[in-house]
Amino acid sequence: MKKSNPTDCSSAIIPVRDALDVISGKWKILILISITHGNKRFTEIQKSVPKITAKVLSKELKDLEEHLLIERKIIDDYPVRIEYSATPHSQTLSKLVKELQDWGVKHRAKIIGK
Amino acid sequence: MKKSNPTDCSSAIIPVRDALDVISGKWKILILISITHGNKRFTEIQKSVPKITAKVLSKELKDLEEHLLIERKIIDDYPVRIEYSATPHSQTLSKLVKELQDWGVKHRAKIIGK
Repeated sequence: MKKSNPTDCSSAIIPVRDALDVISGKWKILILISITHGNKRFTEIQKSVPKITAKVLSKELKDLEEHLLIERKIIDDYPVRIEYSATPHSQTLSKLVKELQDWGVKHRAKIIGK
Repeated sequence: MKKSNPTDCSSAIIPVRDALDVISGKWKILILISITHGNKRFTEIQKSVPKITAKVLSKELKDLEEHLLIERKIIDDYPVRIEYSATPHSQTLSKLVKELQDWGVKHRAKIIGK
């Protein structure tokens, strides 16, 4: 993170704010990881993301769909089934998710080691 | 994001949850970017982060300090001055911030271009 004009750092802040607007909060990236690990059904996803409630999960799934990160498919079966899958666009997040994972491990070691 | 055991993805989720616990919300990373761009004083930081209130900024600065990402120095002057600076540990976030910036730009193009 380089030193530049002390006050105006909007060119660095605005794209990060855009990204955080999409992935902010505790759940969206965790849900996306769960889906990319093969969890397609609502109950599977809910079970794999610790402490998420059904109400929060359905809202976050809707947001992820609006941001073109997941797709929702209605399977014409008895009973009707709904399956979620990650979109190609969500792949653009994989480097960011990797960085989050790496940093999460480093930070835990730093905080616990303090 | 690789395909593995469909239900259990906790090894992928937990470090990301740890990282998100620290940087979650809209403000922490933006404040850190502002500080690393040379904004040391409370008012400078507040001015450079769009729409943040003084109340939210002081809470977020306290959180960042607890997570060893910034330091707070009291300058014995008339009047007393308080200056914030990024810690060496915060440098470990720079790759993540870069990824957020890159993804923010890509995602905006995708959503606006849809």
